Amino acid sequence: MISTFQIPTNIQLKLNQVEIKMLLQTDGYHADLKAALEVLLSSGGKRIRPLIILLIGELLNGPENELINLATAIELLHTATLVHDDLIDGAFLRRGVPTLNSQWSPAATVLTGDFLFARSASLAADTNHNDVIKLFSRTLSVIVNGEVNQLFNSRCNTSKEDYFQRIYAKTASLFETSTLSAALLSGASKVEEDALKKFGYSLGMAFQIIDDLLDYIGDEEKVGKPVGGDLRQGLITLPMLYYMELHPDDPAIMKLLNHKCITEENEIRRVISEIKVSDAIEKTINAAKDFVFEAKNCLDVFEDEEDKQLLSSLASFTIDRTL
Amino acid sequence: MISTFQIPTNIQLKLNQVEIKMLLQTDGYHADLKAALEVLLSSGGKRIRPLIILLIGELLNGPENELINLATAIELLHTATLVHDDLIDGAFLRRGVPTLNSQWSPAATVLTGDFLFARSASLAADTNHNDVIKLFSRTLSVIVNGEVNQLFNSRCNTSKEDYFQRIYAKTASLFETSTLSAALLSGASKVEEDALKKFGYSLGMAFQIIDDLLDYIGDEEKVGKPVGGDLRQGLITLPMLYYMELHPDDPAIMKLLNHKCITEENEIRRVISEIKVSDAIEKTINAAKDFVFEAKNCLDVFEDEEDKQLLSSLASFTIDRTL
Repeated sequence: MISTFQIPTNIQLKLNQVEIKMLLQTDGYHADLKAALEVLLSSGGKRIRPLIILLIGELLNGPENELINLATAIELLHTATLVHDDLIDGAFLRRGVPTLNSQWSPAATVLTGDFLFARSASLAADTNHNDVIKLFSRTLSVIVNGEVNQLFNSRCNTSKEDYFQRIYAKTASLFETSTLSAALLSGASKVEEDALKKFGYSLGMAFQIIDDLLDYIGDEEKVGKPVGGDLRQGLITLPMLYYMELHPDDPAIMKLLNHKCITEENEIRRVISEIKVSDAIEKTINAAKDFVFEAKNCLDVFEDEEDKQLLSSLASFTIDRTL
Repeated sequence: MISTFQIPTNIQLKLNQVEIKMLLQTDGYHADLKAALEVLLSSGGKRIRPLIILLIGELLNGPENELINLATAIELLHTATLVHDDLIDGAFLRRGVPTLNSQWSPAATVLTGDFLFARSASLAADTNHNDVIKLFSRTLSVIVNGEVNQLFNSRCNTSKEDYFQRIYAKTASLFETSTLSAALLSGASKVEEDALKKFGYSLGMAFQIIDDLLDYIGDEEKVGKPVGGDLRQGLITLPMLYYMELHPDDPAIMKLLNHKCITEENEIRRVISEIKVSDAIEKTINAAKDFVFEAKNCLDVFEDEEDKQLLSSLASFTIDRTL
């Protein structure tokens, strides 16, 4: 859960219902799926997507059951993509906890992810809202397409355009679908729908930029995985893109600009150290702040000051968690 | 396509639309997904599920577009499960054509399957029928749960109950969902719904029993994969279950009954030869015939003789293809 954002009790109670609903998804299915899901859910996760959905439901007085179904569906979809991601990346740790992939066979890991996709699709269907259901399945296409792109085209790719497209597919698309779906379920007006869609998009972009920043400057223990993992995988994220602009003469950068990956561990460590003390860090934080600013602006169309303030604080938190 | 079942021209034209719709699913997505889908679809497949759906639509005068969406969704879901199955089994051939898995990395294969799940869910949503959408996603849970069962519990399992549960999850569940969904979309009465659900179930059971039989007696070239693959993987299917009843004193059978797998290639080959000339083959065909008989009985509630006859012939074909 989010530590520096104070979750109101009524929202926390609903978040607990989401947590229970997630765990119930393996009822009646194979015991090993239950065990896998318990491992996955117990390893934490911020549940930021369910939180945003529930806060929007509060803002718009949306239907509680459907919003809880949506929040559960979105978090399970997110979990499913992480399971397959970790398998694809061969990752052994996530949030400081061994991945399913590190403990189970690839076959079992593939099937666990598939099962979570299936259950999340069922939960989305249980919202009984056709547009939400369609949005949900299309977002899965966007996420997977982004992963295919990352697999085939994005290694050592130094284009900022590629980076922003990538983090949209990876993160912002699901944030956008979360907020727009919550708006649709809550019977928002068209203006409110558009505002909340953009709020989700901007918040998702900020969230992923900060995630990418933490891969450079984060506390390994707190982030729960080794620092510099993206660069080692050949993924060029915003801190590096800014560092490249600031230090085009760095030999590692010259290599990258010649479409070659940085592969030597010594060089990787040196570049990480350089980036950490460079202005690239502040520029990255500012880029995230710009998105948060845009997100907050979207909230202007709403009148309810209290619930609006909660969404606004949550937006700020995506940045504050770095500091 | 099915060679000994004469598909009427109007149905063939709709099947062609399903084929085109499947191919269009990668439009706007990564070129490698397009390439993968083309490989998958060009390797053939009988399209028996779309065919049944379209024949039921004809019988009940159902809505054409929604039925084509459903048929496309079901065939893509089926294709997605095959892609992940081949990866899990490490299979190199399917329908005589190299599997995606044999040509692509595991990562790309996982993502292609995920993408096809996503597109099939979108197409199911495009039927705009809430019960169909719910049925669809629940069936995916059943299929995946069956695969988890097969992975963890079914190797060298000599229980007939396990076998029938396994083939329900693997095949009959999707047949049942195909026929019931086609009925729902076509506005069938409750009696017709129940009849078509059971028709799909029985046909699916027969279909998988014959598939399992072909793994013993099939022509390797025609089946498109090596004979005896199930036994080598430790999967005990109906021909072996009947052979066990007939020859409990065969040393390989005694081993199986002691919960040990048959692992030596010589012994596997000998058992396959023995099964081929034993009464287990006829008993297996008869078990499939019983399901086909049940399927045909379900059609009694309908009056349209011509369309009923087509569904009945298709049911017979599931058996005839062995002879």
